[in-house]
Amino acid sequence: MAGIKIHGSVISTAAQRVFACLYEKDINFELVPVDMSAGEHKSESFLAMNPFGQVPAFEQGDLYLFESRAITQYIAEQYADKGTALTCPSKTVPMLLVWKEVEAHQFDPVASKLNWEIVFKPMFGMTTDPAAVEELEAKLSKVLDVYEARLSKSKFLGCDCFTLADMHHLPNINLLMGTQLKKLFDCRPHVSAWVANITARPAWAKVLALQGKK
Amino acid sequence: MAGIKIHGSVISTAAQRVFACLYEKDINFELVPVDMSAGEHKSESFLAMNPFGQVPAFEQGDLYLFESRAITQYIAEQYADKGTALTCPSKTVPMLLVWKEVEAHQFDPVASKLNWEIVFKPMFGMTTDPAAVEELEAKLSKVLDVYEARLSKSKFLGCDCFTLADMHHLPNINLLMGTQLKKLFDCRPHVSAWVANITARPAWAKVLALQGKK
Repeated sequence: MAGIKIHGSVISTAAQRVFACLYEKDINFELVPVDMSAGEHKSESFLAMNPFGQVPAFEQGDLYLFESRAITQYIAEQYADKGTALTCPSKTVPMLLVWKEVEAHQFDPVASKLNWEIVFKPMFGMTTDPAAVEELEAKLSKVLDVYEARLSKSKFLGCDCFTLADMHHLPNINLLMGTQLKKLFDCRPHVSAWVANITARPAWAKVLALQGKK
Repeated sequence: MAGIKIHGSVISTAAQRVFACLYEKDINFELVPVDMSAGEHKSESFLAMNPFGQVPAFEQGDLYLFESRAITQYIAEQYADKGTALTCPSKTVPMLLVWKEVEAHQFDPVASKLNWEIVFKPMFGMTTDPAAVEELEAKLSKVLDVYEARLSKSKFLGCDCFTLADMHHLPNINLLMGTQLKKLFDCRPHVSAWVANITARPAWAKVLALQGKK
């Protein structure tokens, strides 16, 4: 099978989701850097891989995929027997389906906007909107209350194993843990233990190492 | 196997996604109405089924699921041999994964906000924000340009069969086609043919009939 190329940027949370998956599966890949500051993600050649002009894009022979969660699902299915399973025992698969959607529709919309306001805007010399942060922080608190209840009954979100449902959270959680919003995770004991657990995974350390961080 | 109950409302786009799936699969279910105007979706008994307090919730014996796209995926897998397959031939499954995520992350966030502004706000006696509509309309146009290109090469989004990726669009498209934004679909020939095709499905007619519409 042809080698895997990931066209993306090491600071993209969506690309990090895919890197984490490939490291969990112990699959070699080539990172093809996309210079977003130069608008490369809107170039004709990149749009041929992802017509929405967003990183990452996945290339393997003549197969091109985009949308980070579709790429991780593809990798998890295609390389089911390699590295970490990233799925649940069959009886609990329905809960994996639920908690993957919770990440995508309850957690990510709030966490991504918060990271945009408090991490990326300052990085790009833009001004954080404190009213937006306050509103989003209240929303994130409510989401994390549900997570606290879930994680008091289950070691990980989908089941008692680390799966895609947990892994998909890593990039946004990693950024939030470097901000004042760390307190929202720290004050919830089961959420806090889960965060410590998933961020300590060797595969995630490799994703951070890609950025030149330890 | 125990009967399926869907706790929801016939006007909820998320619940409609699940109804469409059950009708495509020709599976009997009981609709348990949730009176959202009376706040029933925030009641203790409902929160025990979906801790996020959103319709629909799925009940089958002691299995409770939430998040509409998790429920449709579960039904498609659990009843793979019944009714419409809703999946792609194995070679094209990766594209089904991609286009399900496109619906969830590119189409739905824009289409849902537009329907909130121009359908639901007037329904609830609230005032539509014209600036928000203008901005969202421009975003939807760009998304539909990508759909037009995709649908010029593929009869449906994932492959040449009707799948979950198409079906998940139905509730939002149905509402938008009743607004001034119908023009965005009509002016793109492949998108327009696809909309005509998917909205004409007998299963979708049954979803509309649930609302007392033809």
